[in-house]
Amino acid sequence: MQLLMDRICRDGKIREGNVLKVDSFLNHQMDIELFAAIGQEFKQRFSDAEITKILTIEASGIGIACITAQYFGVPVVFAKKNKTKNIAGDVYTSQVESFTHARSYDILVAKEFLTQEDKVLIIDDFLANGSALLGLSALIRHAGATLVGAGIVIEKGFQPGGTMLRKQGVRIESLAIIESMDQNEIVFR
Amino acid sequence: MQLLMDRICRDGKIREGNVLKVDSFLNHQMDIELFAAIGQEFKQRFSDAEITKILTIEASGIGIACITAQYFGVPVVFAKKNKTKNIAGDVYTSQVESFTHARSYDILVAKEFLTQEDKVLIIDDFLANGSALLGLSALIRHAGATLVGAGIVIEKGFQPGGTMLRKQGVRIESLAIIESMDQNEIVFR
Repeated sequence: MQLLMDRICRDGKIREGNVLKVDSFLNHQMDIELFAAIGQEFKQRFSDAEITKILTIEASGIGIACITAQYFGVPVVFAKKNKTKNIAGDVYTSQVESFTHARSYDILVAKEFLTQEDKVLIIDDFLANGSALLGLSALIRHAGATLVGAGIVIEKGFQPGGTMLRKQGVRIESLAIIESMDQNEIVFR
Repeated sequence: MQLLMDRICRDGKIREGNVLKVDSFLNHQMDIELFAAIGQEFKQRFSDAEITKILTIEASGIGIACITAQYFGVPVVFAKKNKTKNIAGDVYTSQVESFTHARSYDILVAKEFLTQEDKVLIIDDFLANGSALLGLSALIRHAGATLVGAGIVIEKGFQPGGTMLRKQGVRIESLAIIESMDQNEIVFR
C-alpha cells in the first residue's frame, strides 16, 4: 500500500534493536484519515471472504480495528491483557510472549463474544515474531470459531512471525512488509 | 441520547458495587454502528467549538475516540498507562486513581503530540469519580494546550466526578447520565 509505505518512510523512526517507531501516526497519535484508507484496503483484500467479527488486542490495535470494521459492517472485539492473577469465569485465555518486554502475559476474551458461528478477521498494527497473532488465533480456536485471516498494517519481514504463520496456513494480508531497515533506509518487500 | 439509553437498558448489566457492565456493545465487544451515532452526536454538541485534537486513554476510550474523530477531521492521541517504573524522556505524565482496582497509576503522552497550539476534546467511555478525566486534564495543562471539553458516553451521575469537574469549569457533554440504578431499574437524569 503505497500511501502507507510513503508515510513510514517520511515519519517512521528507526531505533536500536530493530524498533520502528511509528507513534506519530499509528500507535500513539493516530491519523484517522490514514486509518480510513487502511480500512478500505483491508476490505478490498478480504472482499471475497465472509466475516462476522473483527478481533484485535489492546491497546494499539483497537483504533485501526474500529475504523476498519465500518467497511465490513461487523462488530469489533478486543482481547484484554490480563492484569490480575485471577481470571474471572467465562473467558477464553491464551498466552502471548512479549519480546519487547521479555515476559509473557495472558490475554482473554469473554466467551459470549466469540462463538462457533463467528468467522473472524484479526486486525493488528504490527506482525514481528507473531506471538500476538498466535495468541489471538488460540482464542479463536478455543471458541470453535473460524479464523478467516489477519490484516496487518506493518509486517517486519525479517522477523519470523509472518513466515511461520503462513506455513501454518493462516492467510495474512500485510499492507507494508519491511524486508530490511537501518538508520539510513527502509527496504520494502 | 435516546438510542444509547435504550441500548443501556436493553443490554447493560448491573453488578454489585455500582458496576454497570456494557461490555457487549461499548468496551469489550464494540458496536461500530452505535459508535458512529455517538461520534455524530459529539460532533453536534461541540459544533460551536474549534478542536484540533482528540485525547483519550487506553484501552476502552480508543475505539470511540477514533470513530468520533472522523466527524471532527482531527487526529487522536491516546494516553498510555505506564507499565514500567522508568518513564522515558520527553513525555507529560500525571496520576490516575483507580477506584476499581484500588491503586493509582501513571499515564503519559509524548510531548510532541500535545502542544500549546492544541485545542483538545477529551473522549472517554465512562465518567464516575472523574479521576481519568482529571489525569487527562493535567496532561493538557502541562502541555500548555487548551481543554475545550469532554465528551463522555456514560456518566454515573450518582458519583462525584461530573459535579466536581463542572464546578471547575470543565465543559462536559455526557450522552447518558445515570441518576440511579439497582437490579431492577436504571433511572436517567
